[in-house]
Amino acid sequence: MRLGFECRCLSFDYGQRHRIEIEAASRVVHQLGAAEHKVVRIDLRAFGGSALTGDVAVPKNRTESEMGADVPITYVPARNTIFLSYALAYAEVSNAADIFIGVNALDYSGYPDCRPEFICAFEHLANLATKAGVEGRSRFRIHAPLIEMSKAQIVLKAVELGVDISVTHSCYDPSADGHACGQCDSCLLREKGFAEAGLLDPALK
Amino acid sequence: MRLGFECRCLSFDYGQRHRIEIEAASRVVHQLGAAEHKVVRIDLRAFGGSALTGDVAVPKNRTESEMGADVPITYVPARNTIFLSYALAYAEVSNAADIFIGVNALDYSGYPDCRPEFICAFEHLANLATKAGVEGRSRFRIHAPLIEMSKAQIVLKAVELGVDISVTHSCYDPSADGHACGQCDSCLLREKGFAEAGLLDPALK
Repeated sequence: MRLGFECRCLSFDYGQRHRIEIEAASRVVHQLGAAEHKVVRIDLRAFGGSALTGDVAVPKNRTESEMGADVPITYVPARNTIFLSYALAYAEVSNAADIFIGVNALDYSGYPDCRPEFICAFEHLANLATKAGVEGRSRFRIHAPLIEMSKAQIVLKAVELGVDISVTHSCYDPSADGHACGQCDSCLLREKGFAEAGLLDPALK
Repeated sequence: MRLGFECRCLSFDYGQRHRIEIEAASRVVHQLGAAEHKVVRIDLRAFGGSALTGDVAVPKNRTESEMGADVPITYVPARNTIFLSYALAYAEVSNAADIFIGVNALDYSGYPDCRPEFICAFEHLANLATKAGVEGRSRFRIHAPLIEMSKAQIVLKAVELGVDISVTHSCYDPSADGHACGQCDSCLLREKGFAEAGLLDPALK
């Protein structure tokens, strides 16, 4: 919104263990004063294949070299492709041309659909796939502003922009009352980011 | 299946007026002896913007030049992008590399996501977006065997392959008991295809 965009926000209920992230997203949307927040329910469990949606356990206490070694079991097949496809539909009916996605490639290189070449390929597709793109009404751009930032840089940027980090959520495997596990890859990378930024994580109680 | 593939079929319940096409798909799947048929429910009505899912009327009795003049109101924003994204997830967890989609570009040029350049861009994306593509386990191919065929050629190919056309469905705006309206673009193009093939449509009662 600092860049002058009117923000319409999209979250997905895809059967993830950490459904609580949707509530966290609602709090962030509310605090930022975005124009709209849609939550789309999609059924990725129908296909299985991921620790984030299935019965496979979320890996805990892995070292960074273990995390970086291959595509993790928390990878959800084609997830960001599906997310961006819905965002494209939403953008087209809203007459919007700019789609933002918070993927990050640096700290965690294991997800193929978090890389710049994936984002670039989707942008190319978006302009061929849509009425708005073909008619030249919109030239869709996919923005991934966090993609090449370290977790520490992301933390510092959030502080700079006045984001209330205490209402955010990252954990893949939270307890029933919403507390982060502190041991999954997402918790460990978040903790490391705060440590490198020299800050305490305000979401830790 | 004539080409030696084990077929896993995917249909979408996306709030379309012509939901009856899903029952028709089930009949076709059953007759062909496919290995599996999944029906994924997706909520495109959340975004609106199409006569196929919204309250806008389906156009009737249009001439071919009217049909070809621009992207029709029956266009569903980013629909085939969303469909192919789900198919990609399904293929990846099934260890499949070949995805078939029945889009057709020739008779009806108004849909941007039915064109060869769209299919080609999606294939490129698929191989960047997935664990299977990145690890080289699969080289995804998107097949669109009908894309450059006329409706008459499609009818003749179906007959050649022994497809029971009487159980298929094309109409965008069927009556409550499932009868085709005979006036929407899809009905008119189907009728023309049968006429040019010199055959009677066995689905007409």
